[in-house]
Amino acid sequence: MRDFFFNNGEQIDFQMKQVVVGLDIGGTNTAIGIVDREGNVLYEKKPQLPTPQKKENPDSRVDISDDLCDKFIALITSEIRLAVATVRQTIPDLEVMGIGIGAPYANYYDGTIGLTANLPFVTVVHLTDLIKTQLPEYNIVKVTNDANAAALGEMIYGGAIGMRNFVMITLGTGLGSGIIVNGDLVYGHDGLAGELGHVTAVPDGRQCGCGSKGHLEAYCSATGIRRTVFELLTKQNNSESPLAKVSFNDLTSRMVYDAAVQNDPIALEVFAYTGEILGRSLADTVHYLSPEAIFLFGGPVAAGELLFKPTRESMERYLLPFYRNRVKLLPSKLKAGSAAIVGASALVWKEIDKSR
Amino acid sequence: MRDFFFNNGEQIDFQMKQVVVGLDIGGTNTAIGIVDREGNVLYEKKPQLPTPQKKENPDSRVDISDDLCDKFIALITSEIRLAVATVRQTIPDLEVMGIGIGAPYANYYDGTIGLTANLPFVTVVHLTDLIKTQLPEYNIVKVTNDANAAALGEMIYGGAIGMRNFVMITLGTGLGSGIIVNGDLVYGHDGLAGELGHVTAVPDGRQCGCGSKGHLEAYCSATGIRRTVFELLTKQNNSESPLAKVSFNDLTSRMVYDAAVQNDPIALEVFAYTGEILGRSLADTVHYLSPEAIFLFGGPVAAGELLFKPTRESMERYLLPFYRNRVKLLPSKLKAGSAAIVGASALVWKEIDKSR
Repeated sequence: MRDFFFNNGEQIDFQMKQVVVGLDIGGTNTAIGIVDREGNVLYEKKPQLPTPQKKENPDSRVDISDDLCDKFIALITSEIRLAVATVRQTIPDLEVMGIGIGAPYANYYDGTIGLTANLPFVTVVHLTDLIKTQLPEYNIVKVTNDANAAALGEMIYGGAIGMRNFVMITLGTGLGSGIIVNGDLVYGHDGLAGELGHVTAVPDGRQCGCGSKGHLEAYCSATGIRRTVFELLTKQNNSESPLAKVSFNDLTSRMVYDAAVQNDPIALEVFAYTGEILGRSLADTVHYLSPEAIFLFGGPVAAGELLFKPTRESMERYLLPFYRNRVKLLPSKLKAGSAAIVGASALVWKEIDKSR
Repeated sequence: MRDFFFNNGEQIDFQMKQVVVGLDIGGTNTAIGIVDREGNVLYEKKPQLPTPQKKENPDSRVDISDDLCDKFIALITSEIRLAVATVRQTIPDLEVMGIGIGAPYANYYDGTIGLTANLPFVTVVHLTDLIKTQLPEYNIVKVTNDANAAALGEMIYGGAIGMRNFVMITLGTGLGSGIIVNGDLVYGHDGLAGELGHVTAVPDGRQCGCGSKGHLEAYCSATGIRRTVFELLTKQNNSESPLAKVSFNDLTSRMVYDAAVQNDPIALEVFAYTGEILGRSLADTVHYLSPEAIFLFGGPVAAGELLFKPTRESMERYLLPFYRNRVKLLPSKLKAGSAAIVGASALVWKEIDKSR
């Protein structure tokens, strides 16, 4: 299916298909994909990777053995080779532009992951260097944290196309964020900017996973919302709510949504409370950055206006008058299933755009 | 004192002295200066400008009369002409590169001031357009808010030379801020980013001048610190403190410092409390932006470690572990007296740097 045109001795190839490898390294899952410039996922796999056991003490930074690290890199690189070979069977003229990786607490500047305890790694791994050594044919190998990757995904493929100043908030086990200023991700001085999950939302409030108290993540992540459900059940001793029938571990964002649709007072109050706190923190975000829009991504976002209405109202209430009704609060347009891979892949297109 | 060198028909002038006009428009004072590339102030004056009366209702936006606006612009432009002419008497080969203006709530993008009630203007004034019409010989006429100007001043002349990611916090009647990311001021989508005075520091806390409650400005500006003094005097019914002898209106940052040096318990507690709240909010700042440094500017900064120590300790306590001991908290190197003019002038040098 290749067409060649010769013009002044030059060979022009109109059917070369440019794609990138997207890799999402998570605490429990790792996913690999091949993604084209329009965000179509041409290949996807969730290989089982070897992960060292998390240490009991989250502050301990014990080197993982060279052997385990080697195995991890070997598996990643063989999975990348397999992915590219597989797609090339149906699209022979595949041009792979690079490898984009999303991982929690990854450092874009030095290409490392593993500075904190949210990851299976308990030491710094020089991920991009190690991958480049194994796959020298790829010029662009970049890593950033998963929420930054999602922000790039939103800008390259999603609802933020054409926007130069916006903020992405991901609501999952934690609360992540990616900040875009003047069309670029804000990495800060050392590559680690944009941890909005750990701003103080309620001084001396709930225990956060990081060791501090009252952080936004402890209230407005999917996990935080679950905590609110049980806090309200406890306070009101409510046994009528359908949410009273589910265990702490089994409760999902979907169940809270379903209960709210049935006018369950607990579920409705959960969304009102979550929106109040999230909106207040997003007002702070606007005071910092004056973005064009704030996007929300993740399970709780499926609740739609049940979550967005109280969040928007709270945000507007806390804003300085001249910011009011100027900042859009929008659901992400990235597809939930492939967002991590697609976001990671966006990192490569962004590098290509920057170099032009 | 002019030296001409002719080389291939071109005239090269080695002794041209490049300067900019710095203009600081405040609620009560306006200052004009001529500043060179090293931040030396060659001329300074604080002319009395006509200011319309502030409306009782801060939300009212009544047009000031064309006549008053014309008078205001005429006075500014004649003061600029006078300033340039005066300096030219001693430095005949003066090259004026542009006019930089600092004003509260000024909008860099559209060159307007006056969107809120903190200014004597009660309507939007298209300041840069009006000045350009009167002084068409100046290509660069730019305005930004005073804290943004201070941040640029710190970067061009002060302690942030060479830094590409830092935050400036100004502690005065209000609490202002300027955010530098990748070497540029963050203006956001609409030119109004960086209002850290209005992030929520204490939910449902003290009344803020903007109408909301619990904002950082209500606690950690010079005015906020004064409120803390009287709050503690009231709580503890302390009549021994030297601070109990001063009226609310007469109290200055310097008095609180002097009392603290004499180990007055109220004054010491004021600094501890201010540092606790400021440090917690600055930890949020680090989580947003991961800056290399945060600079503090203004009257309270003269208290030195009395303010910096509790602020630094609080900030470190609230930071995610991987940010700890990585972000410098520093006093501004701008001189208090001329900082506003010098900061405003930096806006022009920044424009020139950008266009290179």
